[in-house]
Amino acid sequence: MAKLNLSTEYRIAPDPGNPRLTRKVVGTDHLGAETEISVVEERPLTIYLNRQEIVTAMTIGDYPEYLALGFLKNQGMLGPEDVVTRVDYDEEIETVVVRTEVETSHEEKLQKKTRTSGCAVGTVFGDMMAGLEGVNLPQVEVKTSWLYALAHEINRTPSLYLEAGAIHGTVLCCKDQPLVYMEDVGRHNAVDKIAGWMLSEGAEAGDKILYTTGRLTSEMVIKTAMMGIPVLASRSGFTAWGVEIARQVGLTLIGRMRGQRFVCLAGEERLVRDVDPSAMPEEDKKHRRKSAD
Amino acid sequence: MAKLNLSTEYRIAPDPGNPRLTRKVVGTDHLGAETEISVVEERPLTIYLNRQEIVTAMTIGDYPEYLALGFLKNQGMLGPEDVVTRVDYDEEIETVVVRTEVETSHEEKLQKKTRTSGCAVGTVFGDMMAGLEGVNLPQVEVKTSWLYALAHEINRTPSLYLEAGAIHGTVLCCKDQPLVYMEDVGRHNAVDKIAGWMLSEGAEAGDKILYTTGRLTSEMVIKTAMMGIPVLASRSGFTAWGVEIARQVGLTLIGRMRGQRFVCLAGEERLVRDVDPSAMPEEDKKHRRKSAD
Repeated sequence: MAKLNLSTEYRIAPDPGNPRLTRKVVGTDHLGAETEISVVEERPLTIYLNRQEIVTAMTIGDYPEYLALGFLKNQGMLGPEDVVTRVDYDEEIETVVVRTEVETSHEEKLQKKTRTSGCAVGTVFGDMMAGLEGVNLPQVEVKTSWLYALAHEINRTPSLYLEAGAIHGTVLCCKDQPLVYMEDVGRHNAVDKIAGWMLSEGAEAGDKILYTTGRLTSEMVIKTAMMGIPVLASRSGFTAWGVEIARQVGLTLIGRMRGQRFVCLAGEERLVRDVDPSAMPEEDKKHRRKSAD
Repeated sequence: MAKLNLSTEYRIAPDPGNPRLTRKVVGTDHLGAETEISVVEERPLTIYLNRQEIVTAMTIGDYPEYLALGFLKNQGMLGPEDVVTRVDYDEEIETVVVRTEVETSHEEKLQKKTRTSGCAVGTVFGDMMAGLEGVNLPQVEVKTSWLYALAHEINRTPSLYLEAGAIHGTVLCCKDQPLVYMEDVGRHNAVDKIAGWMLSEGAEAGDKILYTTGRLTSEMVIKTAMMGIPVLASRSGFTAWGVEIARQVGLTLIGRMRGQRFVCLAGEERLVRDVDPSAMPEEDKKHRRKSAD
């Protein structure tokens, strides 16, 4: 059996010991006995772009600044021309304000549209699709040995998921190394926090792989493409529209990664099959992830 | 081992054979061989309340009228005083318009709020919490034998989940009988479709149990309470705020239902422990649900 590299140094790893992120709750089990379990927190966070309220997200509450920045970036509301001058988080009123040097065109557009349409959700979605037009994902190589190493390593990393369940994880990776591992109650928040980190650090996107525990829906594919990352991999399944968008924008989409198995439904040409899958370890039961659902 | 009742007659059951709901997609597997898999569809559906656009939901696309009605009901935008005169679905432009006898106060409120706040998402969430104030859930009995029978039966019902994965299920049940089994890419859509069916049928809520494959988040608990259903059960886990709201509104919240096991974190007083869990069948591997994540 092939030996997998386990010498990872995360730039950001999950923090399952952080007392702000989980709570002990007492209940009864199937036998009627008192039982105490650890459950994840879920808090509202309202995001402003300058003086415009944009959205209230439900989040575990770590990295609110990254979540706000990444959400605005992935919605196409912060473009390359926008200079972010400040990001202010107020814990008490659960609000993040992202300020830019000049008011962005998106604020004005939002105000105009919402006067007639009543809610920005449809608008925001339309903006995301429009934002994909300029996306150009580089033709990098993706070795299948990296994919196996990443899944192996990520499944073994201590996380809120292993501590309390009911949470999604998304991991920014480079080759066979996981770099930034974010978790949240919604998979869109986890990926937005990664986008916020990338924006703050000025991180290169074209040489990265995004790994998620969640399903490969249209939303996940759009966000990954908006971030400029050419490869999205998951242990979960696909939706038809997720596959269609990945093919349109030229993104490599890999799902159902469990043990030796995976399925690639878009961007197959990036894959370099450098290992024999049967030499890779099967997923052992002990480390098999429970469902986050 | 106890015998479980399997003579269910669903009012609405999943329709995994419906060609509109899944698509065959060709890709490659881990060995590089061509493989064809079945993936669920995901389409936008824009919901109007009279002449006011409310939201664009991503959905598999079955029962759009129920989804629209249930969404508006669960958001507190359709109250008991509102008379629904028509529900029009236009497949071509993917739109549902719900018309009421008189314009509801929520439309005006939405328009007013969105003029200043820019997006209705925060507003909608605030409205949902406000709607919980009048909720009064009846003190019915819930036999644990029913819970075991429901989980057993639902896991064996042919579904899109078993056909294509990557989808959530929510089931309206009465005692040990599942009645309406809805599936969707988002668990909130599945529960909204059930709310829409209940509204259309004038179904009683106080004697029902809601079963979901998804996590017990604040959103799921709020929606269940808004529907007047006193019991919410899931094979997945909890969030802290979900538990807190369930305790506030007096809802029975049961999670991590797998085989003989479950945990009850709120409303324990409704449970009647009429069977010995060790006499119930363990979840066998063949019927164990894969993760929808």
